[in-house]
Amino acid sequence: MAQARDHRVVILGAGFAGLNAAMELARLWGRERAGRILLVDRVNAHLFTPILYHVATGLVEPGHIAYPVRVVAHRYGFDFHESVVRGVDLERRQVATDDGPLPYERLVLALGGATNFFGLEEVRRSSLTLKTLGDAIRIRNQLVEAFERAAVEPDARQRRKWLTFVVVGGGATGVELMGSMATLIREAMLATYTSVRPREVRLVLVEALPRLLGGLDPRVGQMAARRLQERGVELRLGTMVTRVTEDGTTTKTGEFLPAATVIWAAGVRASPLADQLPLERGKGGRIVVDACLEVPGWPGVHALGDVACFTDPSTGRPLPPNAAVAVRQGSHLARNLAAVLEGSRPRPFRYQALGELISLGRNVAVAEIKGLRFDGLPAWLVWRSFYLSHLMGFKNQLGVLLDWSYAYFRRRDIARLDMASEWATEAEMLGLPAREAARRRAAS
Amino acid sequence: MAQARDHRVVILGAGFAGLNAAMELARLWGRERAGRILLVDRVNAHLFTPILYHVATGLVEPGHIAYPVRVVAHRYGFDFHESVVRGVDLERRQVATDDGPLPYERLVLALGGATNFFGLEEVRRSSLTLKTLGDAIRIRNQLVEAFERAAVEPDARQRRKWLTFVVVGGGATGVELMGSMATLIREAMLATYTSVRPREVRLVLVEALPRLLGGLDPRVGQMAARRLQERGVELRLGTMVTRVTEDGTTTKTGEFLPAATVIWAAGVRASPLADQLPLERGKGGRIVVDACLEVPGWPGVHALGDVACFTDPSTGRPLPPNAAVAVRQGSHLARNLAAVLEGSRPRPFRYQALGELISLGRNVAVAEIKGLRFDGLPAWLVWRSFYLSHLMGFKNQLGVLLDWSYAYFRRRDIARLDMASEWATEAEMLGLPAREAARRRAAS
Repeated sequence: MAQARDHRVVILGAGFAGLNAAMELARLWGRERAGRILLVDRVNAHLFTPILYHVATGLVEPGHIAYPVRVVAHRYGFDFHESVVRGVDLERRQVATDDGPLPYERLVLALGGATNFFGLEEVRRSSLTLKTLGDAIRIRNQLVEAFERAAVEPDARQRRKWLTFVVVGGGATGVELMGSMATLIREAMLATYTSVRPREVRLVLVEALPRLLGGLDPRVGQMAARRLQERGVELRLGTMVTRVTEDGTTTKTGEFLPAATVIWAAGVRASPLADQLPLERGKGGRIVVDACLEVPGWPGVHALGDVACFTDPSTGRPLPPNAAVAVRQGSHLARNLAAVLEGSRPRPFRYQALGELISLGRNVAVAEIKGLRFDGLPAWLVWRSFYLSHLMGFKNQLGVLLDWSYAYFRRRDIARLDMASEWATEAEMLGLPAREAARRRAAS
Repeated sequence: MAQARDHRVVILGAGFAGLNAAMELARLWGRERAGRILLVDRVNAHLFTPILYHVATGLVEPGHIAYPVRVVAHRYGFDFHESVVRGVDLERRQVATDDGPLPYERLVLALGGATNFFGLEEVRRSSLTLKTLGDAIRIRNQLVEAFERAAVEPDARQRRKWLTFVVVGGGATGVELMGSMATLIREAMLATYTSVRPREVRLVLVEALPRLLGGLDPRVGQMAARRLQERGVELRLGTMVTRVTEDGTTTKTGEFLPAATVIWAAGVRASPLADQLPLERGKGGRIVVDACLEVPGWPGVHALGDVACFTDPSTGRPLPPNAAVAVRQGSHLARNLAAVLEGSRPRPFRYQALGELISLGRNVAVAEIKGLRFDGLPAWLVWRSFYLSHLMGFKNQLGVLLDWSYAYFRRRDIARLDMASEWATEAEMLGLPAREAARRRAAS
């Protein structure tokens, strides 16, 4: 089996942190030694998550943000296993996977993050999240479905429920998703579903802090709030969602919002795999690492990106779980590993955010770059250029450019992407469980 | 509710037959009267099925072959309901849907087709089909998955099983799918998965008739057979698949093919909804219609496309279930309905196939147009131009053109499009049922 090969470095997770670590180390080592790097992920696709919400709002095709890791591995010469990681035996220095154990000399935990429900089980059951490609397609289909339902619904209260869309969380994810939803709904949906009146639609953004974009300069949050309100988004600041049911959602202030669509974007925590490791963990279950991204007490074990809790020495606070940090940590660790294996000392990781770019829908974004704040069209153009240039693969760049251009000049895509198999479809038509539908057809 | 509106014509199914009938009738009637046409489908997307196999083989993005029916309805002025049809009460002249009954004056059954397993329940359980967008993505993911499995599998027999791909059915669907799979595997896969040796890969096409493309001129079938064999496809003609299990498939001649991937493309029958109607049915459960596409004994009820059995008066045989016939029948019926409602007599439907175009992978197709047979690059170029020009929507045309160009000059897309939600993903990592994973996270 492939693990019989001597893999010096095993990297778990092909997100921004893990993939960049693998690429940079392979580059430093050259093709020959790169074969001693093994990257493991449960799917052979690297997902460009910063524009996942564009898939959720019909702006970008799902396939345009997925890039085959196998192609990168082939180009750089490192090894890749598509395998589900079940756990890590830190004492015996091996990773447990569905395809057997993988021994390592150096381990890089780049397992990523998961949605944080803060223990609200009911919320989890009744709300949508935005983490995987499947989640994004589910949101896209739900937005279309809500309008299709409203179009055939005569009861005013029921219509209202279908036409109320709640996003929970006023951080970057929630704000960008709501901005894009507002554009989709105000432009594409209302123009096509002419039986729906604009005033029947409600868009509500709920945030526990008294302002949006809590991590950034307050003035950027104010810009974002004003821009969203201009597009008809109602803000509920300084309150939290306490309940989500099929009928709607309730906030801490006691307000009940009847809504068929509630999207939870209120928090990120470490991948649940991290919960199984006997390691010190910080806020959100993230694995604590030292200045050189190593796990204290476990020499040769590193953690990066959303799964890692790295305390910024300049502020004394953990760095936020985002793509920019993950990319930088991946490259930095790779350089350290290459140096250490040649006898040099590792360097501490330093991070200075270049800035923040938050898109808020057509022609509008807010930006804070090196202390400079600006919004509107200039910010929006910077935003689009920046993300387009960071997409992996020429085809995906071209594809996203085409998707964006088309949506800009013509219309967003409002076809429901039905992912059901023929069997599920047939069962639905006949109102039967899939197995029964199968039996009937087999007998015909 | 919307059905309170007087819908004179109710059309069930937004495939080629139903959508074309709605569009043509709306065009003839003009926007004002078009509101009396109601089109019903369970999904608001029209699927361009002739290139569904391009989605299955990483050539085309899923969203590029789906077009929002709601946009067409808005443009032409007819009505659309996204609703699941449960049955039809022909006596009371109303359709039963999940959103209540829909009364009609004229009914158009354009319900489409389903995969025909000829009663082989075991085959149904263990093979993939190619009918919905979800099916196509499942095949794409399975082809990638097979190579990922083979890449980590040391056992030669197991590798062989992962690397054997069987398509059952030598009609247009099976032949085109196999041609495209051969290109994908020989070009993209083997170039990227360098641990897989070309001679480990087996591609097998099984057909019950003694030749391929049974509906066409025998010389076209011979051309196709030669072209596929040039690409390393093994043909099993004149035999049938009798069993499909997890380990592989067995043919009537007793040959066992160990294969992890078996795709069933051996037959089409009418939608299972047709089974519930008290109407005369022909081969494959298709509803028998008269020369004017009306159901005998039920004035005002029509059937079109794959669900209809129309006997071609010139040959005495039913027309094949394909897109070209469906489109023509849709437009023809619309013209008849417009004529009849103005007091004219309906005209009988006539169909003269323009020809056949079968694509067999990069640069190769076979064509028979007005008795002229040709193959190779010219046929392939005609094929591509023809289908591109028939795609609905400029964005989809542009998207498919980009997809094709990129795959032609660079590489097909071999990223697995994982459609699992965050929850399913997490449950998989932890090896738990989804609900238990949810509970654990909620408690953290």
